[in-house]
Amino acid sequence: MSNIQNRLEAVKQQLSPEQEYQNAVDPIRSMNEERAKAAFDIRSLTYLLDGGEKNTFLKEKIMQELERDPLFKMDDIFDLTTSEVRERTMAKFRSMLHHLQNEPVDQFKKRMEIVSLVDPGFWTRFGVHYGLFVGALQSNATPGQLGYWFERGALSLNNFVGCFAMTELGHGSNVPGLETTATFDEASDQFIIHTPTLTATKWWIGGAAHSATHAAVFAQLIVKEKRYGTKCFVVPLRDPKTYNLLPGINIGDIGKKMGRDGIDNGWIQFTHVRIPRGYMLQKHTKVSRTGQVKEPKLQQLTYGALLQGRVTMVADSGHVSKKALSIAIRYAAVRRQFAPSGANGIETKLLDYPIHQRRLMPLLAQTFAMLFTGTEMTEMYNSMMARLDGAREGDQDLDEVMEMLKETHSTSAGLKAFCTWNCLSTIEACRQSCGGHGYSAYTGLASMYQDFAVQCTWEGDNTILTLQLGRYLISSYREALNGKKLSPGVGYLNNLNKLIGKRCNAKTLEDVLDLDTISEGWQVVCAHVVKNAATEFEECLKRGLNADDAYEQCSQARLYAAKLHSFSYLFNRFADAVKKTTGSLHTILRKICLLYGLYTIEENAGAFLQFEYFTPAQIEFVRASVNNLCKEVREQAIPLVDSFNLTDYIINSPLGRKDGNVYVHYFEQVKRSNPQSEHPYFDRLIKPLIQRSTEENDYEEELAGLEDDDEDEE
Amino acid sequence: MSNIQNRLEAVKQQLSPEQEYQNAVDPIRSMNEERAKAAFDIRSLTYLLDGGEKNTFLKEKIMQELERDPLFKMDDIFDLTTSEVRERTMAKFRSMLHHLQNEPVDQFKKRMEIVSLVDPGFWTRFGVHYGLFVGALQSNATPGQLGYWFERGALSLNNFVGCFAMTELGHGSNVPGLETTATFDEASDQFIIHTPTLTATKWWIGGAAHSATHAAVFAQLIVKEKRYGTKCFVVPLRDPKTYNLLPGINIGDIGKKMGRDGIDNGWIQFTHVRIPRGYMLQKHTKVSRTGQVKEPKLQQLTYGALLQGRVTMVADSGHVSKKALSIAIRYAAVRRQFAPSGANGIETKLLDYPIHQRRLMPLLAQTFAMLFTGTEMTEMYNSMMARLDGAREGDQDLDEVMEMLKETHSTSAGLKAFCTWNCLSTIEACRQSCGGHGYSAYTGLASMYQDFAVQCTWEGDNTILTLQLGRYLISSYREALNGKKLSPGVGYLNNLNKLIGKRCNAKTLEDVLDLDTISEGWQVVCAHVVKNAATEFEECLKRGLNADDAYEQCSQARLYAAKLHSFSYLFNRFADAVKKTTGSLHTILRKICLLYGLYTIEENAGAFLQFEYFTPAQIEFVRASVNNLCKEVREQAIPLVDSFNLTDYIINSPLGRKDGNVYVHYFEQVKRSNPQSEHPYFDRLIKPLIQRSTEENDYEEELAGLEDDDEDEE
Repeated sequence: MSNIQNRLEAVKQQLSPEQEYQNAVDPIRSMNEERAKAAFDIRSLTYLLDGGEKNTFLKEKIMQELERDPLFKMDDIFDLTTSEVRERTMAKFRSMLHHLQNEPVDQFKKRMEIVSLVDPGFWTRFGVHYGLFVGALQSNATPGQLGYWFERGALSLNNFVGCFAMTELGHGSNVPGLETTATFDEASDQFIIHTPTLTATKWWIGGAAHSATHAAVFAQLIVKEKRYGTKCFVVPLRDPKTYNLLPGINIGDIGKKMGRDGIDNGWIQFTHVRIPRGYMLQKHTKVSRTGQVKEPKLQQLTYGALLQGRVTMVADSGHVSKKALSIAIRYAAVRRQFAPSGANGIETKLLDYPIHQRRLMPLLAQTFAMLFTGTEMTEMYNSMMARLDGAREGDQDLDEVMEMLKETHSTSAGLKAFCTWNCLSTIEACRQSCGGHGYSAYTGLASMYQDFAVQCTWEGDNTILTLQLGRYLISSYREALNGKKLSPGVGYLNNLNKLIGKRCNAKTLEDVLDLDTISEGWQVVCAHVVKNAATEFEECLKRGLNADDAYEQCSQARLYAAKLHSFSYLFNRFADAVKKTTGSLHTILRKICLLYGLYTIEENAGAFLQFEYFTPAQIEFVRASVNNLCKEVREQAIPLVDSFNLTDYIINSPLGRKDGNVYVHYFEQVKRSNPQSEHPYFDRLIKPLIQRSTEENDYEEELAGLEDDDEDEE
Repeated sequence: MSNIQNRLEAVKQQLSPEQEYQNAVDPIRSMNEERAKAAFDIRSLTYLLDGGEKNTFLKEKIMQELERDPLFKMDDIFDLTTSEVRERTMAKFRSMLHHLQNEPVDQFKKRMEIVSLVDPGFWTRFGVHYGLFVGALQSNATPGQLGYWFERGALSLNNFVGCFAMTELGHGSNVPGLETTATFDEASDQFIIHTPTLTATKWWIGGAAHSATHAAVFAQLIVKEKRYGTKCFVVPLRDPKTYNLLPGINIGDIGKKMGRDGIDNGWIQFTHVRIPRGYMLQKHTKVSRTGQVKEPKLQQLTYGALLQGRVTMVADSGHVSKKALSIAIRYAAVRRQFAPSGANGIETKLLDYPIHQRRLMPLLAQTFAMLFTGTEMTEMYNSMMARLDGAREGDQDLDEVMEMLKETHSTSAGLKAFCTWNCLSTIEACRQSCGGHGYSAYTGLASMYQDFAVQCTWEGDNTILTLQLGRYLISSYREALNGKKLSPGVGYLNNLNKLIGKRCNAKTLEDVLDLDTISEGWQVVCAHVVKNAATEFEECLKRGLNADDAYEQCSQARLYAAKLHSFSYLFNRFADAVKKTTGSLHTILRKICLLYGLYTIEENAGAFLQFEYFTPAQIEFVRASVNNLCKEVREQAIPLVDSFNLTDYIINSPLGRKDGNVYVHYFEQVKRSNPQSEHPYFDRLIKPLIQRSTEENDYEEELAGLEDDDEDEE
């Protein structure tokens, strides 16, 4: 035995210092070290995040199918031109259609969730037809109309691709202000769809440039010279046999965008285009043969479906953050930079730097908060919609349903805004944390930013959405003062007496490290900022402003209240979820939740100090605790990222490789994407530049025959 | 007369309501309204910002020259492929070279400043040779060596283009950790340049892929098996007659990036490449024929030149912010959305919404702060360099010069970091403030973000730079305690007794609206956070950590101190500049400076409350005052943007049109960039998809001959 040991020792000694060094810094080994630290069952956390084992298996099945689908090849996407991306995106329709028609709708929804992580441009382009166009039919068509369009191929894509023509060059947020007109012509029983001005040009219409045969057009209904507001009309755009534009239709390509170039956004101008009266979708407002217009009493009942998109975006912000953090954290686990003295030149992992932990760990915690809140938000939406779908005018519980609708609307508005902002900042922070390599297209974070950025604008501009929540908070506050019992999300406003002026009653500094204390702290500051916003609003009313103007004047206070309310909401949903867990999973999740709570308090320290919930000493302790928690969560960072369970194919970044072998794969990717070739323009551009005659002198003094007699004059 | 008036009246009455509406919302008219509000002389502000009338005229001359130079056509840049951008970028070399050789260096610097706004990719590619390569020669070559390389064409681009090969795949921030070796071979009197590992591959080397004949290579000097650290060597890469790679050189293209695709970044691997001993640049370290190495005593004297880049980036952050805000603010002056009741449908300008003022006016104020600070920073750098260039070992004033170097180094590190971060956030905020149109490539803000993002990483990763400043603040604090008189920028640390614990002595809330009070407040919070960081550092030392580890452990405190110090610095430089102005210029600039000061206090309210400089009531008043100041500055927003004096060509965005005619030009740009054409892939992709047989059913139950007898069994 000792002989063998000696020989092993000898072999070991034969390693050159260089080889020993290479072993020590080997990225695969570095990654394995991290993975071995797992203090909880990774698989259990995956099941929890996915909503159960069954969902995890389903996701894994879908990830494998996508990876093996040649149309979904993604590692060469970074170098495609806009036209190439457009074509490839269209080509993916066929396999997606296959799944749509052959699997249960819930399964297909999971597929789309994963597709949105793989190829957000395709997700949108496909969603334009099945989400927006078909959704517009379902929300606005009578049952008969729905049947008609489905028979015409709207569901099966049979000689039919739809698009959704709402926004115009001059109008985005203000839908009632759209300029396109739909004038009823009683003589022919037709509507005339018309674009009266340049700014009325339909703009940003996904699918219009190259895909759509029909559009759901939002236009001002005009009957007998009276305007009835914006309604929805189906307008044929192209001959499905040839894709030639129909008479009166003018369409162009919107062209290059910041991201999502796979979507063929277009502009549309209608010039006196005639459609049958029946092409107006008349589930709500009806126009009869003789031009009698019948409007619905409960317009609000139609708003529910519009919330779907923003509800989904809360969870999506969590999913995209998972992807970004998988890259940044895995890279930080193997990237080494600077060797401390006495380390034999072995450099330190980025993840071991306190400042790097500070950059990434709070964002990891925030991601968990968004994921748990996304699940909660989806449930809230589904139960609201279940009630709303059955609701009819005159129902006894209509008020209650309307309250649910209002709460879901406002909560989702705020969360959509702050979660998409959070996610966009997370992507950029992850990108910057990868140093120079974050600027390479092939490491994936640049395009992730460019693709995601639009989420802050569409489905409601974020700033405007925060103001909607702010308005709801003010009106809830006023209702609470009048004794009304509020919905759960704003229930704390029923406890104003207890909350206003309340200070943290932690006896020791350590008592601050408690989920319930943090939760109370958030309720207190939220109560204060909502109260301040409401007071500012009341003062505007007293100064004689009408309600709308008063709301505008206190918009900054509304935004601030909405921000703190949404952060509080995220923390509380996270804490709720943590409380349902046990064992080692509970231990790690509680730690992450604590980090999230304290980090957001630190970020909003001004509010916690201004309303004196915490003392300066407590805030200083919060800062120190965030440092400590970052260090603790860092120990589990790789197991946590592993629990996100995204395959290398989905992550599509060599820096985010599960095996840690980042440099080899990054170099391979760069070489594969940029094969060495003949110099593309040496003869044409460089040679004439650098091999020009040295005698050349642009401003050579030459008199060109002129006899200059300056000398004589002097 | 009255007859004519009557007729005019009649004509006026003939305007249809539609025409009257169109007049009221006409963007050109809206812009003119704003311009007419100017309460100061726009031209005088331009002169002030440019540093004098002469500079303004020079800039205007250069802007016109660029606009008329066909190679600098920029309005089609958004749709070029990476290879097309690369070629066009190379083509621009010739006209730039012409100017470089025929105009005074100061004038050429102004030209480059403007070029960096027009085409940042070209600016970098050109700068790689003249800034980085020639700069490396100037910093590291002996006079004789400099003469040699200039004679060989390094200055005139005569059979010569240089690149700067510092970073490697595995090392960016840690330059002393670079792996490339330069081993002296005494027998041949040559160095052998070698890439020993994959991670030693030179990476991100601008100009390497297609431009450079020579590289300034940073490699580990090894003589007689001893390592002497990273030195600089000139290594020929290509035959300048053919551009074929030289033996032992392997170069590839790094390919697609987030932005600046005009730069041909490449990777380089050296395989035992031999160069003469004289190709090592030996201004500082010298290697003799017999392998004697002589190292310099005062290495620091060589650092000055490295600061140039980051000093420039402070002002650049201001310049790029000017461009972004010109677009966002001009668009907000003509874009209308939502009509209040009683406005006859005339919608409100975005700029009139308090929340929109809140989004843009503080950023406008911050831009002024960065511009004035940039000027100051450049002067500080120049006077430091003037002293440093003449400095020799043994000089009596060497300590003083070293102090200047340290201060310039640390101050520029912090300002580079926070100003580039500020600018990047400003671009994104401007982009989002344009709503959906901000996502179009043609409105210019997307590419501005993508091009600028790299500034947060190169010339020193921002986070690392903030830590350098943090370290300087801690050591300055300790020196101050020991009675040393500090440099002006950190002079407040000599007044710790007065500052620590000081509260604002404003008698009324209104007294807070004072530049000196704000300045004092910043000094107080800075003194506190620096003290806290230093205390944390001391505690780490007491726990037995060495200084380096102790600095790592308190890195979050360092970053926080650096942040507040830099914001304070920006405010104070702005306030200094304001105090030098008079009249109506003073009135508006003082207002903007007040807004900047109060806005940054609001953003950092936690610190001002924690250290009890302001009371909660004062902070509440600060918030309200920011609202009011945003409203006041908004009144002058267009004249202020006009004072930036960027032409439509430079701004290169239809939304930023000076005449306000945004929709017409935006539509024209989109149409010009995307001419209507035959459908690119209908026959190939769409027709087979939507005209497939309706009988098709992927999972049609078909037994294929199998006789299934389930029925019998049941």
